[in-house]
Amino acid sequence: MLQDTQNTPLLAGLEAGGTNFNCVLARDPRTILARARFPTEKPERTLAKVLAFFREESARLDPLGAMGIASFGPVDNNRASPDYGRILNTPKRDWVHIDLLGWFREHLGVPVNLETDVNGAALAEQRLGAAQGIDNFIYVTVGTGIGAGIVMGGRIINGFTHPEVGHMRMSRDANRDPFPGCCPFHGDCLEGLACGPALELRWRRPGTELPPAHQAWELQADYLAQMCANLTYCYAPERIILGGGVMQNAFLFPLIRERVQQLLNGYGPPPALAHPDSYIVPPALGGESGQLGALLLAQQQLHGNPPAA
Amino acid sequence: MLQDTQNTPLLAGLEAGGTNFNCVLARDPRTILARARFPTEKPERTLAKVLAFFREESARLDPLGAMGIASFGPVDNNRASPDYGRILNTPKRDWVHIDLLGWFREHLGVPVNLETDVNGAALAEQRLGAAQGIDNFIYVTVGTGIGAGIVMGGRIINGFTHPEVGHMRMSRDANRDPFPGCCPFHGDCLEGLACGPALELRWRRPGTELPPAHQAWELQADYLAQMCANLTYCYAPERIILGGGVMQNAFLFPLIRERVQQLLNGYGPPPALAHPDSYIVPPALGGESGQLGALLLAQQQLHGNPPAA
Ligand SMILES: Nc1ncnc2c1ncn2[C@@H]1O[C@H](COP(=O)(O)OP(=O)(O)O)[C@@H](O)[C@H]1O
Ligand SMILES: Nc1ncnc2c1ncn2[C@@H]1O[C@H](COP(=O)(O)OP(=O)(O)O)[C@@H](O)[C@H]1O
Ligand SMILES: [Zn+2]
Ligand SMILES: [Zn+2]
Repeated sequence: MLQDTQNTPLLAGLEAGGTNFNCVLARDPRTILARARFPTEKPERTLAKVLAFFREESARLDPLGAMGIASFGPVDNNRASPDYGRILNTPKRDWVHIDLLGWFREHLGVPVNLETDVNGAALAEQRLGAAQGIDNFIYVTVGTGIGAGIVMGGRIINGFTHPEVGHMRMSRDANRDPFPGCCPFHGDCLEGLACGPALELRWRRPGTELPPAHQAWELQADYLAQMCANLTYCYAPERIILGGGVMQNAFLFPLIRERVQQLLNGYGPPPALAHPDSYIVPPALGGESGQLGALLLAQQQLHGNPPAA
Repeated sequence: MLQDTQNTPLLAGLEAGGTNFNCVLARDPRTILARARFPTEKPERTLAKVLAFFREESARLDPLGAMGIASFGPVDNNRASPDYGRILNTPKRDWVHIDLLGWFREHLGVPVNLETDVNGAALAEQRLGAAQGIDNFIYVTVGTGIGAGIVMGGRIINGFTHPEVGHMRMSRDANRDPFPGCCPFHGDCLEGLACGPALELRWRRPGTELPPAHQAWELQADYLAQMCANLTYCYAPERIILGGGVMQNAFLFPLIRERVQQLLNGYGPPPALAHPDSYIVPPALGGESGQLGALLLAQQQLHGNPPAA
């Protein structure tokens, strides 16, 4: 895809994460012109820094054409809602009801397109990463929380709000795993048992310090395999991309793939059974997918082509 | 919606069920002109009877314009697949690889539109039943098996194949429920624990003979509530319609609704939390939804408006 990028409008991309806000500017998502990262503090502070960055860089480069935001959740991503673009009931109390979209639309004076971080990451993997040419796939992040962006028939799937697959229920054997889970709402839901903080709480040290042979990982693979089996039966995707900090442990992939095959036990959609190695895969864009997704959201906003079904 | 029904083409609707094949003829799904029911026997026998019925009635009434089929699964419902319209790997061995769609297209000489039985039922509930005016909802049948038709943004959601939510994993307490489940693939998946045959196998008498005060129902409500919670987090629907033989026990609804609220524990999409009574509801069309869905599929085929995303 060759473009006369000099005449293409400048796009602002913001990955609004629970730990950091990552900002990027580009005409084409494949060529980042400027970046910045700001910690997620009080909303006023963080938002002011992000705004200053975009203003300064755009003064240096070009006026902005549009902005895309891939935001942590829960966030209202329903374009028909009066609260579209607002953060919802998050444990980060300072951020509840913050109008992320409205704030940037007002202060930057450009159209803004907002989706969840995982929906943004899914979009990026679809256009530029591990799901190119695939119409039905799921992008999962296993990090501070667990969430998924779901693409079916080429379109991001949202219901009344965005899915929150991290809170699906698990089968937990309390003899094998006495850890009661850390989800503030459900205890031992998927996120409560298998997010990064759960690993650390269960084994009393950070996931990064658990060696590959530690029993932690077989249990971790088991919960993530249950998740993959449930996603397989609920959506019949052609591929499941597992990203996020915890999945940087590449040795988890074969463990998960093997356990998924045991759980499916020969029954399921052809892509899941016939090609386990290309069914459950790491992201191709690594930690960049959220930012690139935000730029793609900006691009879609400009071309009047919203990503959601 | 008034129509000059005399000039509207005649539609054939077939609900191809595991127990019976239900046939209906209509110009408008609200006015059935003829019906017949044939048991699900060897494919040749059943298909010949269905064909004879449609031929005779159409000779009496009018030439057919189109046919719709709402079929038991697994069935290939992917319009882009070379096997579109064929029954897949079902325990009913005689029916494996039967080309349901092709057979009727050839012998009736009209265009045929095929979906799963639950996708058909969902379509009917959307147009004529308990999901009118609702864009995001799920229709579940709890009968011989457990399956769901999922509508998001007004469209039926399929992945590479149709979803099979009946095989999601459950949290089962083996002390409370020693029954190991009856799914031939997974034992104690949702369907293995909560379909009609599971009720009968666990308690050694048919579900119809279990009184409302029997402990069977609290357990049944618990598994169905786990299902509803998982569907809530995976799709964020505005409504979940629970149909099928087992759900004819109306006293299950309050038990399930209460348990779902416990499981969600205050966290979830607004429709699930704010309006439990209109969130989990019985079908409005009862046992008719599959047949009416088949007629709607025929109608869509005629108007070039396929139902799937
Ligand atoms: N290599 C690793 N192994 C295990 N856990 C990790 C690893 N890297 C990060 N984590 C855990 O994942 C969580 C952070 O997830 P990450 O995806 O990096 O960010 P976030 O989800 O906040 O956007 C933390 O709980 C951290 O302990
Ligand atoms: N009122 C009822 N109470 C409990 N179980 C029932 C009831 N009616 C039917 N069933 C059970 O549901 C199953 C049949 O489900 P049904 O939805 O009627 O048909 P199918 O799923 O085959 O299309 C059987 O296992 C039957 O025992
Ligand atoms: Zn939870
Ligand atoms: Zn099963």
